[in-house]
Formats: sequence, structure tokens, C-alpha cells
Amino acid sequence: MKTVRLGLLGCGTVGGGVVRLLRENASYLAARVGAPLEVARVLVRDPAKDRVADLDRALLTTNPDDIFGDASIDVIVELMGGVTPARSYVERAIDSKRSVVTANKMLLAVHGPDLVERAQAAGVDLAFEGSVGGGIPVIRVLREAMAGDWIESLSGIVNGTCNFVLTRMQKDGLSFDDALREAQEKGYAEADPGLDVDGHDAAHKLVVLAMLAFGARVEHERVPTEGIRAIEPIDHRFAARFGFAIKHLGIGRDHGTAVELRVHPALVPLDTTLANVSGVLNAISLQGRALGPCLLSGRGAGDMPTAVSVVADIVDVAVARINGASGLKIRGVQLSKRPLLPIDDIESRYYLRFVVFDRPGVLARITGALGDHNVSIEQMVQEGGGNSTGTPVQVVLLTHEAKERDVRRALAEVGACDFVASSTRVLRIHG
Amino acid sequence: MKTVRLGLLGCGTVGGGVVRLLRENASYLAARVGAPLEVARVLVRDPAKDRVADLDRALLTTNPDDIFGDASIDVIVELMGGVTPARSYVERAIDSKRSVVTANKMLLAVHGPDLVERAQAAGVDLAFEGSVGGGIPVIRVLREAMAGDWIESLSGIVNGTCNFVLTRMQKDGLSFDDALREAQEKGYAEADPGLDVDGHDAAHKLVVLAMLAFGARVEHERVPTEGIRAIEPIDHRFAARFGFAIKHLGIGRDHGTAVELRVHPALVPLDTTLANVSGVLNAISLQGRALGPCLLSGRGAGDMPTAVSVVADIVDVAVARINGASGLKIRGVQLSKRPLLPIDDIESRYYLRFVVFDRPGVLARITGALGDHNVSIEQMVQEGGGNSTGTPVQVVLLTHEAKERDVRRALAEVGACDFVASSTRVLRIHG
Repeated sequence: MKTVRLGLLGCGTVGGGVVRLLRENASYLAARVGAPLEVARVLVRDPAKDRVADLDRALLTTNPDDIFGDASIDVIVELMGGVTPARSYVERAIDSKRSVVTANKMLLAVHGPDLVERAQAAGVDLAFEGSVGGGIPVIRVLREAMAGDWIESLSGIVNGTCNFVLTRMQKDGLSFDDALREAQEKGYAEADPGLDVDGHDAAHKLVVLAMLAFGARVEHERVPTEGIRAIEPIDHRFAARFGFAIKHLGIGRDHGTAVELRVHPALVPLDTTLANVSGVLNAISLQGRALGPCLLSGRGAGDMPTAVSVVADIVDVAVARINGASGLKIRGVQLSKRPLLPIDDIESRYYLRFVVFDRPGVLARITGALGDHNVSIEQMVQEGGGNSTGTPVQVVLLTHEAKERDVRRALAEVGACDFVASSTRVLRIHG
Repeated sequence: MKTVRLGLLGCGTVGGGVVRLLRENASYLAARVGAPLEVARVLVRDPAKDRVADLDRALLTTNPDDIFGDASIDVIVELMGGVTPARSYVERAIDSKRSVVTANKMLLAVHGPDLVERAQAAGVDLAFEGSVGGGIPVIRVLREAMAGDWIESLSGIVNGTCNFVLTRMQKDGLSFDDALREAQEKGYAEADPGLDVDGHDAAHKLVVLAMLAFGARVEHERVPTEGIRAIEPIDHRFAARFGFAIKHLGIGRDHGTAVELRVHPALVPLDTTLANVSGVLNAISLQGRALGPCLLSGRGAGDMPTAVSVVADIVDVAVARINGASGLKIRGVQLSKRPLLPIDDIESRYYLRFVVFDRPGVLARITGALGDHNVSIEQMVQEGGGNSTGTPVQVVLLTHEAKERDVRRALAEVGACDFVASSTRVLRIHG
């Protein structure tokens, strides 16, 4: 029986998990695939570094030619992360007719459509379940389970660091800084947390999801992206009072010509599944025209959950190779360049928190400015009013559905007023 | 290019949905499969009945031989439901080397393992995503996404009727009877609701899940099964007071030799995703050794969601056929006869609601009986006490983890006391 030989690029924590799962489940996986899976060679930067327990050190190499030059290697598993040199290795794998499994979200966000088309042209597979949502099988569900449906929209908690920080703020009243410090201590956040808390990581994942859900080829750096640094404990308190949790979301919607993609914190109703996805868990909610809503949640990161996704991809790709049918994972994917809907054009309900000096006529000015721009108010609450100490008061409004442009214009008008003590917090309400 | 020809058995609401999706997405599906999908023949009971808009009536037949005798038909799609005659048709399809797609949970609960092994022996596919959880791709996730993992346990809301009724009781204070009547009016419950509200439908689905998750061949009629008829509005009130929602669950756990399967209502913490799966939505939570938790939710029934699952199966089965690799959907499934863990042996936390006459010493007797049987109490609340009207009072206890056997023995002891006004409500606490 033929063996399917794997070349691993990179062997950090996820790679170690993959090696472990392949070993622990070897006989079952061989039965599934119809052939044993064998780790043939592993490209690493430093062969002296400690590796997964019983990976044969003779398999390690620092020379990529040892992998690409070995014609017996069928499948390349890229687990290095980053764009360089991962991109050139993936291209080289495709060009040499190997199928590729990768968990590299950044590579896919930046070059995904090109790589998909390159793999399609070469007739090989490109599988990347591990790139979004760690152990959550969202790519498989989008591509396979919803093959006969049309995906209208999606929204998801796709960054575990943000969700951990927001959950600690929401449930335990921590400040952003304290919650972030704890995330760093627990290893949930990098020393430089910008990629996570400023929303860029979520934007990368959203772009990958949009590629498969909407067939959209978009410029990832143009996705409207907001992080969570500006959220204060008081926002969580007000959100709870109105029946919401604050979550950091990636949101996508197919508008036909344009595609709406945005990443930002949002208020989510407390009695929904999405609002109750806590801590480092991720979740992705899909809306199919025929299927209706479908939510998937689980561990969005971590070595073993991601390794489970990578191994599932390896199995699929290996089965296809054994049967002479490589390319199945991306067969039928049609990508077209799609403009992004300008953020000004989106419609949403809004949470607006004004910090103002409590003078007569202030409320009338605020509500008047909103009304003048067609933004109608659903609920209002004022906190700290009736004092004469000159301390600013908090005025929180929830609006009905409104155009972002109109909200911005109204807020610009209010912001110019002398009763405004500090900048207005604007959060969109989701669902 | 070869066409993949489908023979449909049954064309009710799900069948109509399948025909519609195949037509609406024909070109995309053909690109995915590598060949057009064609509905070749449709077996129905009454050809005069109204069917889906543009299904050619010339395709309808009442004679199964028109399908099984047509050697050009590659794939049989069974959407009749029930065991007879569906079983014999599915067997006939397998024996004649056709691959089979079915959404028939009852057939699979009763004969699933035999049919899987029959299909394995014949080298054909047997796909049944539509049989559990309607549009929720749980079978695919169990089989494919978790191929490299070990599934330790699962729990799910798998009956939409029960979930609708319990949600209406929980959120709007309806009685069981009123909520059920509303479910019937909305078409969410059958005129004879027993299969749903007594838990048998959920037990069928649990048995199918256990077959794939644990490789367990079990006797479906021996799964401990409780329905929701006995739940009263007061139980929802107490549950909420302790921070829980009442949900009807199917629960499974792999204990090595034995497998634990049970279907019953249970208290679920309000701040979990499972507790917030409302109305007719279903959800299934899986626990993988490496993956950790993974939750899938969506519409558990309905023509279009189920049709999406059936079409996804058709695509997979058709791709495998085109590539001469039929059998992939069940390749590697190994089933073995597994004893069910007796319900007496399970361990759980419990909600116990006693209805008692408020006399001195009653609480001491109750807590004493529990203590004598190693059941320790975590929380207690009494409602309606201190009256001298002779009206019974409600005493609700939440226990720590305890053996079911011990709880039953303690309750038998309490039940024999003359201060007990009516039977004690016992609900397990999940998670």
C-alpha cells in the first residue's frame, strides 16, 4: 500500500500537536485515508531546539531543498506563519504539484485568492481550516456543508485575546489594562498585543472567511477595523443595563456588487448564543439563504485545537491524492474582485455615550442634532445628573436603525458644542 | 462529461427543497462535483399530488423497479422517513452498488450499524447528515473535522419541539399544555406529539450520534429516556432563581467499555451558549480530547435546512463516485456492541423540588435522608413557608455531584413520609 508522505514546514506548538495526533491516531487515520500517513521531513530554523517527544531528529532539516527536492513527498504542511518566506514555499509546493495544508491566516488574508487560483490551475489542493477559528471547522462548513446554499452574511468572535479581555471586563469589572495584563500573563496575548486588540488579526480572518463565503477578493488593509482599547468598564455597565454584552466582531454581508466587511466592538443581546461565548472561545455565525442561521463555537487558537483542524485537512488532501482527485478542497471556488461597502453606507443601531456638563438644554441639543440627521432614538438613560459640582454626566442613547453617515454628521455637530466634556463613545449594536 | 444521476425515494417537503437547491445551484454544483447532477427519477406514492414547481412530472413513478432497474442511476436519495419500506429500499440500493444519501433518523437509530457495515462491505457510500440536527453539519464535523481526535462526550438540544415548548415556558411563563398547543398551531409539533415531547425522537438522534462519536452499537430502545411533560412553570422559576435554564438534552459519554447515553430535561447554566439556544433551534456540543469544546447550532428541522444537508451529502457522494472512490463517508467507521451505563451509575448534580406540608422537622428529615445516602447539599430555598393554612410549601435543593442510585434511594425514603404532599421533581444539572 502506498504511503502518503508529508513535508512539514515549521514545527512549533501546532506542528508538535500535528505530529502527536498523527502518531496517536495512526491506525485509524490509515484506515480512513486508505494509506498510512508518514512525516517524511521537517523544515526547522534551529534543529537543536527541543521538539515534540518522539519526532525522529533525523527528519529535521534547515534546507528547504531537502523537502522540495524529494519527489516522494506528496503533501506540504506549512505551519511557519507570516508571509515571508511562507508564501514562496507554498508557491513552490503548488508549482511542484504538491497539495498544501496551511494554518497561516496572514498569508491567506494577503495572498489567499492568488494562492487559491494558483492551486486550481495546478490541479492541487490548498486546505486551510486551521487558519480561522483554530479548532472550529468553519472553512469546512462554508465550503462543504453549505455547498448547495447561498451565504448571505456572517459574524464572528474570531480573536480570542479580545474576547478574553472583554469577558473579564464584562463579568469581573476589570479595566482594559488589567484584563490585557492578565491575558499576557496567561499567554493569551502577545507582548505586543496590537495585532490582536487593534483588530488586525480579526480583519485577516474575516477576509479569509469572505473569500469562501462570498467569493470575494478584497484588499485586506481596506477593511474598516476598530479594536477594543477605547472600551471602558462604564460601557460594559451601560451595555448590561440595556441587556447587551460587548463583543469584538468581524462582520460580513454580501450586497451583490459590493461586500460589507467590518471589524469592531459591538453590543450583542445577552440572551443570544454569541453573547455567551466567553473567554478565549471563538464563534462564527453564518446565515444561509436556505439554511438559516448556523453558529459554530470552540477554541479559536491553541496548539491542539488547531492541530485537529490541520490533521483533518491532511486526511482530506491525502484521500484526494490517493484517489487521483487532488484539488477537491478548492474546486469550484470562484473569486472576483469586490469593492468594499464604505463604512458610511452601513446601517446599524447605535449605542452613543455622551459625556457632558449638565446644563439646561443639553439633552435638547443632542436629541435635536440626531433628529436633524434622521437618527431616531429608542432608549435613553442619564447617569450622575442633578449635581451641581460641575462633574460631567453620562448620557447614553440607543438609536433605531440609522445610516452611519448620518450618525457621524450628528455627532460632529454635537462634538462642536461647549457642553461636551470628552469624546463620545460610539458602538454599533449587532443583531 | 459524465452526469451523476440521482434516484429520489420520496418527494415531500425535504425532497422538494432538495430539487429546488439542485436546480438553483446547478452550475456551481456541477463545477464542484466535476459533473452535472441530474434528478433521474422520483418514487412517490401519489403522482397526482402537488409537487415542487418545476419538477418534470414524467420523472415521477410509483414503481421502485423504475429506479432500481435503471442501471444509469448512481445515487439513491432516501427521503421517505420511517423504517418500512425505507430499510428494504436502502438495502437494495447498497446491494446494487449505489451510494445512498438519507435523512432518516429512525431508520439509522434502529438499523444504522447494520446499514453502515453493509455499505462498507459493498464499497459504497452511506451519507446521512440530514438525519440529525437538520441543517447542523454535526455528522460531517464528527466524521471529518474531528478525524484526528478522540470524542469524549457530547450533549445536545436535538428536538426542536421540546426546545420551543421549554423556551416559551421559560421566557413567557406558559404552561406545558399552552406551549405545546402553540407549537402545534405553528406546525412545530405533530398532532400526536409523543415522539417529540416524550423524548424518543431525541433518543433516536443520540443513538446515531453515538454510533459516529463513540463507534457504539447500542440498543436504541434501552437508552434511558425522559420527556418534558412533567416540567411545570414553577420549575422554570426556580431554575432561573438559581441561574439556570431548563433544556431537553441528549447526553453521551464514552466510558471505555460502556457508553453513557441518556435523554432528559436538565438544568443548564444561563450564561452558557447551550442555555441560550432558543425556540426551535437545535445545538450539539462536542468535547474532543485534543479539540476541547465545540458547539454547533442552527435549525434542527425544516425542509430547507435539511435539504442543504442532503445536497451537501449528494455532492460528496457524487464526487467520490466520479473519482471511483465511493465509500469515503463511512470509511474507517468501526462499530462495536457497547453496553449502556445503567442510569443508576451516572453521576450528576441534581435539582430536587419537594412539595411538603410545613411541619417542624421536615427539613431535617429531608436533609437527613440525603446525607444518609451520601448526597450533599449545595443550596436550598423554601417558598411559601411560615403559613398555617395547610397549603404545601416548595422546598428546592441543589445537590453537589452524587450518584443517581444514592439520590433515588434517599428520595424513596423521603417519599414514604407523611409530610410529602406530592411527588418530588428530580432534574439533573448539566455542566
